[in-house]
Amino acid sequence: MSDAPSRRTLMTGAAAATLLAPGLAGAAAKAPARDADMAAIRKAAEAGYDASVKRIQDWIALPSIAAENRDMDKGADYMAALARDAGFTGVEKIATDGAPGVFGVLDVGARRWLAIYFMYDVKQYDPAEWSSPPLEARIVDKPGFGKVIVGRGAVNQKGPQASFLAALHAIRAAGKKPPVNLVLVCEGEEEIGSPHFRQIVTRPNVLAALKTCEGVIIPAGWQSPSNGGVSVNLGAKGVVEFELVASGEKWGRGPKTDIHSSEKARVDSPAWRLVQALTTLVTPDGNTPAVDGYFEKVRPLTAREKELIALAAQRMTEADAKKALGVDRWIDDLPWEKALERLASQPTINIEGLVSGYTGPGGKTVLPGRAVAKIDLRLVPNMTMDDAVAKIRAHLDKRGFNDVEIKVSGGYDPTETPEDSRLIRAQLASYKRLGAPATLYPRLAGSWPGTVFTSPPVSLPAGQFGLGHGSGAHAPNEYYVIESSNPKVQGLVGGTMSYVDLMYEIAKAK
Amino acid sequence: MSDAPSRRTLMTGAAAATLLAPGLAGAAAKAPARDADMAAIRKAAEAGYDASVKRIQDWIALPSIAAENRDMDKGADYMAALARDAGFTGVEKIATDGAPGVFGVLDVGARRWLAIYFMYDVKQYDPAEWSSPPLEARIVDKPGFGKVIVGRGAVNQKGPQASFLAALHAIRAAGKKPPVNLVLVCEGEEEIGSPHFRQIVTRPNVLAALKTCEGVIIPAGWQSPSNGGVSVNLGAKGVVEFELVASGEKWGRGPKTDIHSSEKARVDSPAWRLVQALTTLVTPDGNTPAVDGYFEKVRPLTAREKELIALAAQRMTEADAKKALGVDRWIDDLPWEKALERLASQPTINIEGLVSGYTGPGGKTVLPGRAVAKIDLRLVPNMTMDDAVAKIRAHLDKRGFNDVEIKVSGGYDPTETPEDSRLIRAQLASYKRLGAPATLYPRLAGSWPGTVFTSPPVSLPAGQFGLGHGSGAHAPNEYYVIESSNPKVQGLVGGTMSYVDLMYEIAKAK
Repeated sequence: MSDAPSRRTLMTGAAAATLLAPGLAGAAAKAPARDADMAAIRKAAEAGYDASVKRIQDWIALPSIAAENRDMDKGADYMAALARDAGFTGVEKIATDGAPGVFGVLDVGARRWLAIYFMYDVKQYDPAEWSSPPLEARIVDKPGFGKVIVGRGAVNQKGPQASFLAALHAIRAAGKKPPVNLVLVCEGEEEIGSPHFRQIVTRPNVLAALKTCEGVIIPAGWQSPSNGGVSVNLGAKGVVEFELVASGEKWGRGPKTDIHSSEKARVDSPAWRLVQALTTLVTPDGNTPAVDGYFEKVRPLTAREKELIALAAQRMTEADAKKALGVDRWIDDLPWEKALERLASQPTINIEGLVSGYTGPGGKTVLPGRAVAKIDLRLVPNMTMDDAVAKIRAHLDKRGFNDVEIKVSGGYDPTETPEDSRLIRAQLASYKRLGAPATLYPRLAGSWPGTVFTSPPVSLPAGQFGLGHGSGAHAPNEYYVIESSNPKVQGLVGGTMSYVDLMYEIAKAK
Repeated sequence: MSDAPSRRTLMTGAAAATLLAPGLAGAAAKAPARDADMAAIRKAAEAGYDASVKRIQDWIALPSIAAENRDMDKGADYMAALARDAGFTGVEKIATDGAPGVFGVLDVGARRWLAIYFMYDVKQYDPAEWSSPPLEARIVDKPGFGKVIVGRGAVNQKGPQASFLAALHAIRAAGKKPPVNLVLVCEGEEEIGSPHFRQIVTRPNVLAALKTCEGVIIPAGWQSPSNGGVSVNLGAKGVVEFELVASGEKWGRGPKTDIHSSEKARVDSPAWRLVQALTTLVTPDGNTPAVDGYFEKVRPLTAREKELIALAAQRMTEADAKKALGVDRWIDDLPWEKALERLASQPTINIEGLVSGYTGPGGKTVLPGRAVAKIDLRLVPNMTMDDAVAKIRAHLDKRGFNDVEIKVSGGYDPTETPEDSRLIRAQLASYKRLGAPATLYPRLAGSWPGTVFTSPPVSLPAGQFGLGHGSGAHAPNEYYVIESSNPKVQGLVGGTMSYVDLMYEIAKAK
């Protein structure tokens, strides 16, 4: 989850009612064998609870942080050991130009294959900001939630991933086999934008294994605490992050370092140059990209996408969404449904940060030698990262800003998964069966690197799945609920069982 | 010296030759009495050298820092004690709405009065950046310079000020009286822009004392290490520092805090708003204010000012100036003399700093709730701070940016002192007599709050004066030369004697 905002923020109230007619609930097939299997596996999952909790805690104790190149090799080895322990065979570390990946297969001779995506890295953290040491993974009573593990990676992604592994342990302990064969692909650079993940999935043996699969699931623990709701997203915007840099060094004008500001009267200013370059990128209200040709490849919302948004708009509460964001009005004072359409359909050029010269308290009379705007782009189908960056480069060049650098740090194209894919149908059926209200949504405005799976050569459906709840990804006091005091939200065992259920659902789905 | 750049940067090569014809040197009056006095006083200054050094060191050990409200009262008491010790009478602390000032008089019944301006505060410092503890005032051998005191305040302003006090001690030790009466005015908030200094100089008794004076001198230790040159500036630009702030809070659009950047598609951006507001303030090249009516009060350079610049241009080395600044070309590729004219004559709107959202390494996908540009304005005669700020406010309002805040943190109007004033004539004559090549310059592009002295009600000539050398004001390892190994640059005793000489010069000047 390098970049998806918390599901609660995005889908506030979205899951207040399922988009599937309630009458369908009883229609889910309940073969006696499956029910018996599930009961036995649940018993095994409950028996294995302590071991499952310890598995999360031990994993949290080893933080692999790609941005700091911290324990990447150790983290991959640990990931490989976890995979072997859960029954995967042929587990290997996959070298990349960055941190290694991990690959393994669990072939039980089933009719269908399912791929699972794991990340073994976590986001940076500052222990000073935490209520308990972020690597201690302490178990804490969180009012309204129950027993939670507090630690870096608790919900993003070690908790949900370990819940998935717990499913395999429980299936084995119950004397069963998974109802589908599994392919596991793991990377250690998700938090820096997955720059080398494509190298992993396109390794011939990995690609061949993936190509047999129905789709890819990413374990998730994002149930709404208000009603246990989840969302099933049919895609996500792409994202590009870059720094736009104006400098005396590259410009050949202005100073190369910060100099005394009295010199402004005879010396050019890279900071003003950055401002001027920035201004050309968007409309005067700052809301729409004004880059030459930027909308060429933008595909408008389909009728079905608009329909899904309209349904979601009815079920979500605009006031809740505004309150959660601390926003009084949408762009152009759009009404609710139009704001949701804009959220799903519009590419953006956003300023994440501005940094130049003196940034401390008060002032300092300098003329900065360098000015930086940290920018992110959100891309909608059928835009691509490479094309968007090239268009911005050409746009700046055409206006004489050849010296203003675009330093791309990461990103990926948009991702889309068909609503009629077996993966999506099985997810909806499984959520239904498990009693979790699911909202089908056309496109997440946040981003995740699903394009690696959904675009050639892998070309599979892909999406998040899982019951359970946690929050605080990228923030202090990240947590994952292991024993839920909220009847609408699952704990560790319930999350584990959701993965078991999905595997059965995919095995039987038409 | 809150804001004047180092004289070396500004006047690189400026003092390579004096603007006064060499033949005039012998014309300076050398009354036998004065010469005899000077010899006796020099002997006393040399005898008092150790005490003078210790006076600087002890003063450095007590850092008053207005920005941190650190030891302001103690610093004022210490200043008062130093003044009494040097012979001032009626010394009193002057309460202000900020840190107290200090005032004293040394009335020896002379024909003329001279005012001296002191600051007892120093700039903040980070000991970690220093080669020796900044309050220890260690004496260090600095290759090419000689023995120097390293400490916060060494050159800005405790060293030069203590050199002035040493002059009074030496005069007394030699059994003489100062040739002029003295008024001492001190403040403790120079480093934060002298926000309450006007309260000090307009106190009835202070104002009355000042009104009797020929002018005000600010002790300075800015001799060029290359040739011992100094500059005599007939004025300085004014300065205003403010933050331009766009925020969701004030705008009523966009978020009030940083939110996830995927929201940009439906939420307005204060960072883009800031960029749009900024763009309107200057011409597209970023070099000329484009604020409505901004040039209304700007007085073009006079013929004499242009003449002085042309003379200076001939004597300064353009290549040296560019090298010192790390700048390859001036604005509009102006030739040297035109660049100097622009430096002296143009008001500026400079971006000191930009701060918004995420400012650390790499990126972070946020939509910031607030964006700040730290701005400084340089004002030329006859602009005023209040008028400039009001014009920018009106300009922004007219364009609908009523919500974009202007948070002024400090500033003051331009300052001018007439070339034909007795103070300036005496300075030039004294420098000549002392063999220091002096360059007369119409206006410093940097700023100092001389307007407090030069504008009503005080209305006195004012300027920096002094031989000696130091550097590193506002930087680590600030130093002041006490024993010079460079024959062209004076040490502590030579600096002390320059003040003695100036007093004699003013006493006798026509």
